[in-house]
Formats: sequence, C-alpha cells, structure tokens
Amino acid sequence: MTKKYDKLVTNALGRIVPEVINGQVAVPFMGIGKYKPAGHRYGPAISSCADYPADGNKLVASLRDALELCGLKDGMTISTHHHFRDGDLIANQIFDIAHDMGVKNLVWAPSASFPCHEYLIKYLEDGTINRIEGSMNGPLGKFTSRGKMAGLAVLRSHGGRYQAIQDGELKVDITVIGATCCDPFGNANGLNGTSASGGLGFALADSQYAGKVVVVTDNLIEFPCVPWQIQGNYVDYTVLVDKVGIPEKIVSGTTQITKSPDRLLLAEMTARFCEVTGIIREGFSFQAGAGGTALAVGDFFYKIMKEKGIKARFARGGSNLYLVKMLEEGYVDFILDGQTFDLDGVRSMAMNPNHLMTTPFTSYNYHGKGNFSGMVDVAILGATEIDVNFNGNVVTHSDGYLLHGIGGWQNCLFSKTVIIPIPLFRDRIPVIVDEVTTLCGPGELIDVIVTERGICINPLRTDLLEKVQGSGLPVVTINQLKEEAERICGKPEKPKFLNEIVAAIKWVDGTVIDSVWKLSE
Amino acid sequence: MTKKYDKLVTNALGRIVPEVINGQVAVPFMGIGKYKPAGHRYGPAISSCADYPADGNKLVASLRDALELCGLKDGMTISTHHHFRDGDLIANQIFDIAHDMGVKNLVWAPSASFPCHEYLIKYLEDGTINRIEGSMNGPLGKFTSRGKMAGLAVLRSHGGRYQAIQDGELKVDITVIGATCCDPFGNANGLNGTSASGGLGFALADSQYAGKVVVVTDNLIEFPCVPWQIQGNYVDYTVLVDKVGIPEKIVSGTTQITKSPDRLLLAEMTARFCEVTGIIREGFSFQAGAGGTALAVGDFFYKIMKEKGIKARFARGGSNLYLVKMLEEGYVDFILDGQTFDLDGVRSMAMNPNHLMTTPFTSYNYHGKGNFSGMVDVAILGATEIDVNFNGNVVTHSDGYLLHGIGGWQNCLFSKTVIIPIPLFRDRIPVIVDEVTTLCGPGELIDVIVTERGICINPLRTDLLEKVQGSGLPVVTINQLKEEAERICGKPEKPKFLNEIVAAIKWVDGTVIDSVWKLSE
Repeated sequence: MTKKYDKLVTNALGRIVPEVINGQVAVPFMGIGKYKPAGHRYGPAISSCADYPADGNKLVASLRDALELCGLKDGMTISTHHHFRDGDLIANQIFDIAHDMGVKNLVWAPSASFPCHEYLIKYLEDGTINRIEGSMNGPLGKFTSRGKMAGLAVLRSHGGRYQAIQDGELKVDITVIGATCCDPFGNANGLNGTSASGGLGFALADSQYAGKVVVVTDNLIEFPCVPWQIQGNYVDYTVLVDKVGIPEKIVSGTTQITKSPDRLLLAEMTARFCEVTGIIREGFSFQAGAGGTALAVGDFFYKIMKEKGIKARFARGGSNLYLVKMLEEGYVDFILDGQTFDLDGVRSMAMNPNHLMTTPFTSYNYHGKGNFSGMVDVAILGATEIDVNFNGNVVTHSDGYLLHGIGGWQNCLFSKTVIIPIPLFRDRIPVIVDEVTTLCGPGELIDVIVTERGICINPLRTDLLEKVQGSGLPVVTINQLKEEAERICGKPEKPKFLNEIVAAIKWVDGTVIDSVWKLSE
Repeated sequence: MTKKYDKLVTNALGRIVPEVINGQVAVPFMGIGKYKPAGHRYGPAISSCADYPADGNKLVASLRDALELCGLKDGMTISTHHHFRDGDLIANQIFDIAHDMGVKNLVWAPSASFPCHEYLIKYLEDGTINRIEGSMNGPLGKFTSRGKMAGLAVLRSHGGRYQAIQDGELKVDITVIGATCCDPFGNANGLNGTSASGGLGFALADSQYAGKVVVVTDNLIEFPCVPWQIQGNYVDYTVLVDKVGIPEKIVSGTTQITKSPDRLLLAEMTARFCEVTGIIREGFSFQAGAGGTALAVGDFFYKIMKEKGIKARFARGGSNLYLVKMLEEGYVDFILDGQTFDLDGVRSMAMNPNHLMTTPFTSYNYHGKGNFSGMVDVAILGATEIDVNFNGNVVTHSDGYLLHGIGGWQNCLFSKTVIIPIPLFRDRIPVIVDEVTTLCGPGELIDVIVTERGICINPLRTDLLEKVQGSGLPVVTINQLKEEAERICGKPEKPKFLNEIVAAIKWVDGTVIDSVWKLSE
C-alpha cells in the first residue's frame, strides 16, 4: 500500500512538508517565482474520429453506462466541477455507482466541495474513495483533520488545480461535467436551461486533459449548443438525466452582502483606503471575493465611483447582483467572471457580451504565459488568520481544523494590491496571530490588513504608506493589532496537533507550501 | 544534410509514397479510419508566470525584436495564418527579417499560401527557407513542381494541420499571428479594427502548441480585448505595427458567385439533386466551399428554402454575403464559420451571436473525439480531377503542376453526402479521368459528381440511386462521363514526370496518401 507521505523537509518558509505525497514526488515551496518547472505540459492520449460515432451522437443511456464505457476501475482519479455549488447532484451519484460496481480506492478531484458532499464520507470510510484532491469544506474537512482519510488530502487553489492538471501532476482519468445545456456531441454550457448555473470554467482543464470526458445534462438540445463553454471535441459520452443540479443552491453561504454592522464598517474602511490611495481611479480594476464583506466592498466602490463619475475597466471574480448592476449602469466595462454566484450573474453572462466567462486557465494558471491576476489593481480577500509577518491562512481555523478550500485566494495574491478586511477576532479568538496555523499565502504578497481597530500596511509597500500620510485613516502596525487582539481575548492557545500530516497545501506553482496536521477526535 | 525523402512504398491506394519525409518517419495511408494513432498529444514546454511581465504588458518594439527574443535560429519552423488571404503582410516580413539576420534552413508552415507569397521564392532559392509545410499555390506550386525546393514540401488539409500540430508531428517553434485587435497581454481577435478579417481559427493550433507565440497588430487596445479568439495566456510577445493586413484583399479569387452560365447550370443541377433526394429538408445542414460554383449552390439552396418555407439548422464554411443574408433572414439558425471570406462575413461574426467562429479543432481535427464535419448533411466541393473510381484531386492539374492547397477539402469528405459539381472538361482537358494525377481523397467518400452532361452517383450510395429514380435528373455512370469527355477532347496525355518526389500529400490522420512528382522546366 502506498504511504500517505514520506520524506519530511523544511521548506523556504520554514514549514515542514513531505517530499513524497501518495507515492508521488513533490517539490517543497522554494519562494515566490523561484521554482522553474521543467518538462512539458501533459498530453492526453491521441484520439481518432474513427472511434467516435460518425454522426456525432455520443448519447448513452445512463451515467452508469457512461462510467462503465469509460472503464471505471480501482485507483482511478475522478473529477467534478462545483458550478452548482451546494446544489451539485453529480458527484454523489458517481460514487454511488462506483460503490455499486465494487470499485475501490478512487481519488476524487473536485474543483471545490460543499456541504452536500458530506454524503461521501461513507465512501471515504469504506474504501471506495482513497482521498480527495481539491478542497475539503466543513464535515469533509473535519473528517480529514481527524486523520480518517486513507490517502493524504491535497488542497490546491483554482489556478493550482489547472496547473496540476495541465502539467500532468494531477492526472484525471474520468471527468463528469454537469451542464445545463448540451447537444448530443457534447458541446455544453451552463447558461441555458432550468438549472442554469452560469460559466463552466472550472471544468475546462478536466475537459482538455482528462482521459475520458462525460457530460451530463437535463437539457439536451439539437447541435450546435452555443456558446460551447465545453467543446464537444473533448467529450467521449453524453448523458441525459432528469435533473443535473439545483440552481437555487448556487446562492449559498458567502454570496450575499453582509448585514453585520461590524463587517460593513470593514468594507467601508477598505473602500475609503482605496479612495485615499488613488487605487479607485478612472479605468481601474478590482476583484472582490465571495465573502459577504468582500461583496460589501464592491458595493462601496460603486458608491464612490458613482459619486466621482468614474468607471472601472473590469471587475474580476464571481459575478452577482451587485457587479451586474455596475456593468449594466456602465460603471464597469467588463465583468471577467470565473464563477457565477447568483442568478443575476447567470442571466447577465447569457445576455451581455461584456460579461465574459473566464477560466482558471485565463485568470489564474501560474504555469501559463502570464495570467489575468497580475493585471488586477486591487483584490479584496478574506482569511481565517493573518500573522505578524503578513502570512495568511484560509484553510484551517485557529483550532486547527481544516474547514475551507483555497479557492482563488492564492491566485489573487498576485494582484497589484491585496487587501484583507478582517475582524480583529472572531468568537473571542484573535485573527491576527504570531504565526498562522497553516500558511497558505506568503506575507510578501499581502499588502494591507483592514480591521475595525485600524489598518495596517505591509512595510514592503512604502508607496502605500506614503499615500496614507495625513489621510486621517487609522494606520497601525500589525504588532499593535496583534497585541490589541491579545489584550482583549488573551493569548490564544495553539491547537494540539498529533505528529501526523493529513493534508498538503500546494502553492500556485505546484510546490508544497504547508501541511495540515492531525487532531485527535 | 537530411534527405528530402526515403524508403518508397506503395500505400493502401496503390500510390507510391515515402516512409521517411525530411528525416522524419511517416506512415503510408492505410485506409479510411484504419490508422490508429498511438502516443499522446504534444505538450509544449511548461511556462511560468515568473518569466512574464507581472503587469501583463508583453509589448516589444518590433517584429524583429520579437523574433530575436523568440530565439529565431537555423532550422526552426515558423508558422503563419492565412486569414488575410492575399492581403497578408506578415509572412513576407518574417522572412525578410530572418534573411537579414542570416538565419537559414527554416520551415515555413502557413495555414495556406496566396499569390502575395510568390515573394518568398527568393528565400526558398537562397536557403533562408528549406521548405513549406502547408500549401503551395500558383507560383510557389510551380516552383515546387520543378523540384527547386530544398526540402520535401508537405501538404495538409486544414484539419490535418491541426492534427499534425496537436500530435507533435509538425512542431512549430515560432508562430506569428496577425490580429486586427489585440491587447498588450496578447488577447486578440480579427473582428475589430480597420483591417478586420473575421475569425482567427486557423491560428488556434499554433497558439496552443508553438514554442513561442507572437501577436502582431495594428490596433492595440486596453486589456481586455474581447472576444479573445486567441488567448493571451498562450502569447509570449505582442507587437504594434502600422498595418497588419489588407482587408480588401480578403475577397480574392474564389469568394464570389460565378457569373458563368455553365457554372450556374452546375449549381442549379446540384441544388435540384439535393431537393429531389430530400437532402434539403427542415433542419438540414450544408457546407459550400469557397469556389464560385459552390457559392452559387448555396444561393440556389436559399431559393429552394424560401420557396418551401424551410430553414437549415446550420451552414458550415467560409462565410460571405450570401450566407449572412440567409442567417439574417432566418433561413439558417447558425453559421459555423471557419474562415471569413468577405467583409459582410466579418461584420456578421462581430455582431451576430449565431454567427460563430469555428476552428480546425472543432470542425476538422480527425484526431479529436469526433468533429463537426460528420454532422454536415451535404458538402459541395470542387476538384481539379475525379477519376472513374471517384477518387479526387485538388492539388495538381492534369498537366502535373502543383497549384493548389488542400484547404478543408479532405475534411469535408466526411460529411454525410459529398457532391462535386464540375465541368466535364476545362480548356479542352477532361476533368473526369482514368486515374487522378494526385490522389487527395479516396473515392469511397465522394458520393455525387454533377457535370453539365449528367450526374453520376457513387455505386456505394444505393440510397441516393434509389431516390433519383423517376426524378428526371440526367443520371449517368462515371464511365459514361469519362467517355463523353474523351470523345470531345480526345484521350488526355499524361504529364511526363521525372523520377523524383517533390511533395507529400497527407491524409487527415497524418498518413501519406500520395506524392507529387517532379516536372522538368
């Protein structure tokens, strides 16, 4: 049996990481931009039209038929996308079928997981699934933290997932792509149909590089299905089912503006900071993540832009009601949309040619010839912890439990200015700490921390420090913030980890930036 | 020095072909769908964002700078696209620069060549260019036929070119993509700008697989340039020049409806055949090539559809005024456009979401998981010769001279019905012959020949033979046609070839279907 991990070393950030993960060699983090990849992008096996139906009709009777035709067998890697978010109906079905077929030891490589996937714990327990390479939210995270996963979990950012699949580091044997519109040939999108979920960008790498590609839809239309967000020329089989996803559940959790007065204050301070430092200017660009605070920042930007009569060139990120409003009112020229967060976003992407689907390839892939993230003037992100060296954590909480995926967070750190608005403490646990529990992003990429007790600027950003002088903004140092937090909450206790790694955190270049350690029950 | 070719064998069609071409092993044609590719798609070297400008600005001062930065050196393969057709201003410049730099022995891999490229003969003569892998029209064809090219010319269809690049059979070191709209990052299209040329599909494979990718534009806009027909994430350098192409020359030669009464008769007979056999029906699909006769067929289709009140699901092919009219009047739901043939096509693609850019990947790549060509109900194609076994020739004339590229012709042979309307003779030289001078497409894929002296149906298509019974259509056998031609023109003399091969003709799967032989001056 393959060891979960082997050969621990200390990486360039002083974190202990394995050099062998699930039997595969891994490179420890070497510093930002320091690791130079060798080798070539992965090339899937060459196909021939001779092996596909001459009339282009790739329909098979059921998902099970498709998986059998794909040759589903022990040890394979199966991937899914998360455009339905908590309304996904595909992943659980796949592993039900695998379990029925008696297939064992699979790797599940979702682009993200959601609470609905708690269902899969039984398959992690009975050996149907060996491990998850992707993200482990909530119950799946707790399961992982307790050391119950047979293999070592691997967490990657959205861009890192594209990179890993492109580079052949993560070889997907079978991908199943849920699409709300599809033709028999496999051209597919998420824009049309009763379950419409928006773009299908997170399934791009899978469609391009997986050995076998299955598209499942509840809305089969005559060729051609356009736009072909997923190209049928990559697809092996198509399947018609009753229901492919629950669109109401796309709007889940973090996709609505916060109503908390504390969070609104953070958002307002962040927007004010961007105003004072000249980040908000004619033709600027911004990305606000999925969190309620980040969304509120976007809304404050809107108010400032409206007041000043200026517009942004583009807004990156998950689209939602608020961004769509800005686009429709002419306050942004383009939405470059990686993930549609609500039904307004879905509608806008379907109708508005300036609301563009982006993919982890265009936006985040660090092993491309550049990507979009470096062109974004300011990214507003969240974090579970920030330490006094500005290092950030987004996957574990201070109690040590793995509870979140990385999402696009690491990728967005390459924006020109990265701002993290966070409360100084949550549930009386400080958010600004001596050292993050898990290091997901190096401090040199994190520029500004905005808290209700003051704003601190990374000393590396002397330009920003100059610009805020005389602004009246409550600028403090990160140590002041940490001490303030500890004064109020007391020095936080460190989690008591056992001496075993349960998950590896990948950096955007595929190197291992940190490990997640086991907790007892 | 590498031999032009080696190891002659007889392939499955009885044609003599080399098993080694320019030092590289080649597979002789084995029959349609018989060759099963092994191995994996080509993977270019993995890039890192660390090696690209953080702000996404990849502009360099000149094309020469770009080529130097790309490391242009002896023996490299340089590719260009032909979306400007005879208005291309890029290819000649590249080789001027290469010549200035003293670089030798290059391979030019255009997606097609045009009369404007006669200019490159001097570089073929002085050793700057070793050979062309792509197409050789007019003067370049004559030059090749006379054995003057240092290396062996290789001709591929549009789909075969994608296949060869994808499979790593044709490794492009540097591609230069002319685009009429581009941002500094390299996102590019051919839709906007004063030189607008339409889609850039023929440059797709090059952008995805070339070692270095340069985009040259005369219309640099702020990021993001949308739609990004070419994705900046594949691009190394961008260059701003005064003029990238001559849009008036896009409309060249074969893109206007014939005015010849003889050709119009052929077109009308073809349309009538499609009507009688039920090919023209609600929801059908068709592809008409670039020739004047093929365009006229489309126009006759239009008249029939209008009369009967039916519409087509989609039209494939180069777009032009006539197809655009059908789209705008609702007689076709979609144009799936591989190549914009006139400025009406350019305008329509830019404005109409149902006028879609397709690429050789979606439409023609035989080493994909299917492609669009098999879904087309009827393709109307041309030929220089058809023999009594229905084999077709599109590259040489009966005098033996190489004068045309293959274009999408081979790829379109996979349509459900292939009809070739041709005159029985041209300049008193029969078009229906005993044996084609060069075999570009096997007879089993060619269904119907329409001539002014009768229509002949491939005996394999018993279904069509049944349908025309009692229709009054002048159905004859191919031997009757050949004899009629010979009765009028006399038995044609065979060209006197020398015992040397000057070009290899690839089939859609990369195998060698025929050779072109040398002629004396």
